[in-house]
Amino acid sequence: MESMMKGLWLEDRKMTFRDDLPLPKLEVDEVLIKVLLAGVCSTDLEMLRGYYDFTGVPGHEFVGLVQDENGHPELLGKRVIGDINISCGECERCLRQEPSQCMRRKTLGIFNYDGVFAEYCKLPAKNLTVVPDEVSDVLAVFTEPTAAALRILDQIQVRPSDKVIVVGAGRLGLLIAQVLKNTDCDLKVVVRRPEPAATLEAWGIKAVYPEEIKGKLADIVVEVTGSPEGFALSRSLTRARGTLVLKSTFAGDVSLNLSKLVVDEITLVGSRCGSY
Amino acid sequence: MESMMKGLWLEDRKMTFRDDLPLPKLEVDEVLIKVLLAGVCSTDLEMLRGYYDFTGVPGHEFVGLVQDENGHPELLGKRVIGDINISCGECERCLRQEPSQCMRRKTLGIFNYDGVFAEYCKLPAKNLTVVPDEVSDVLAVFTEPTAAALRILDQIQVRPSDKVIVVGAGRLGLLIAQVLKNTDCDLKVVVRRPEPAATLEAWGIKAVYPEEIKGKLADIVVEVTGSPEGFALSRSLTRARGTLVLKSTFAGDVSLNLSKLVVDEITLVGSRCGSY
Repeated sequence: MESMMKGLWLEDRKMTFRDDLPLPKLEVDEVLIKVLLAGVCSTDLEMLRGYYDFTGVPGHEFVGLVQDENGHPELLGKRVIGDINISCGECERCLRQEPSQCMRRKTLGIFNYDGVFAEYCKLPAKNLTVVPDEVSDVLAVFTEPTAAALRILDQIQVRPSDKVIVVGAGRLGLLIAQVLKNTDCDLKVVVRRPEPAATLEAWGIKAVYPEEIKGKLADIVVEVTGSPEGFALSRSLTRARGTLVLKSTFAGDVSLNLSKLVVDEITLVGSRCGSY
Repeated sequence: MESMMKGLWLEDRKMTFRDDLPLPKLEVDEVLIKVLLAGVCSTDLEMLRGYYDFTGVPGHEFVGLVQDENGHPELLGKRVIGDINISCGECERCLRQEPSQCMRRKTLGIFNYDGVFAEYCKLPAKNLTVVPDEVSDVLAVFTEPTAAALRILDQIQVRPSDKVIVVGAGRLGLLIAQVLKNTDCDLKVVVRRPEPAATLEAWGIKAVYPEEIKGKLADIVVEVTGSPEGFALSRSLTRARGTLVLKSTFAGDVSLNLSKLVVDEITLVGSRCGSY
């Protein structure tokens, strides 16, 4: 094995391709993983725009092969996916079994921990899940965003009688739409281009353009654009006493009429990583 | 009965005392009420600062005597309190039994309907509740804000194991503190002056100053200041996966880091009127 590797490097909001990155240095319980396939998340793109001042290898969606098991022989040579939150195991949140909200956490490719856009990455053994043979790499790499989509159903109840609007039809939006479709709710997805509209229609999910949906009200709205315009549209579509789920991160602050939130008794739910 | 009455008049954010206000003109099912006692809510004060462009008689907390029952003889001479939301009874929200969120509602002393800071006010008969003889005027006038405080417990579950912080110890904050104390939760109220601190301590509720609470984290935070500073403090006190209840209206927009809300998976709950 070489002592250097190829990979992407993020610094000062600039991404460069490098062939001189050091191999990940393993601490106790961390294993070395050869990256087979990685996914690009909108958060990666937001980081280029200044969401998080991260210097290092970005990327957090992956499937890989364990290369150095570092004391965990059961993992050697296994194909794995991994939880992106590197938790301390000792803080209040960890003791409440909420490691993804660990108060001292590092986050793979996002915060204080190099990510997966390189030949190799590392993660603590406890973060890894072995991928069954019948699941392809292309499916396995979607585990992290699918878990994030499913997280919504941990947080709120979606009933078949609920009108639900997903605002944003990027990859996460499409995953969320597929997850929500299983609840049999009255589902619409706001798109801006014909391609995702066609994909959604093929799945039996109604796609609408922003101008078609204006003034309609939903019980539950899921914001997946991460843009102030998308947020404003989502807010306007949420009925009084409705729920607005925020599923995307935003670069910068967003100005909000909190009084309207109070008077309309809206519930705003921040939603992040799900369990594998 | 005179054809004119004394009262307060709000116009262009200025409040004036007038003795030439016309008596409320009754529509079908509206009854005339002589105001015995009225309460001042922070919303009234916010209206002076431009929250809602309301012209008319302000005020929505009251207890009064029915003076003209207008077809509802069972109410004649009764001492009453009243729901502040004048609902249409026909819209989607009304049909869902959520009249306080009626889509065509008027609001007593706040929106399109004259309020109670005058000798007389009016309300639809269906909005009124007769006050039992054993309840004094001074107690009865607190019904509306107490119902608003109790509304929190309709919306979220408060457990004895929960750490709860109320930010703001104005009248509504003190009512909310008394309501929350009944849940046996671990309760603290953020105060800025010694008087409410003494009142709270006399009730067996812990009062803390902002500088004493910084960096502490609570499962549930209730914002009752309606100021951007109060909101910022409340947000900083809400633990990851915690709940922040907004109980006050704010004049103007507030800038918010939505990404932090997403990453911390905070639930923001707008909370308004409660049921009598």
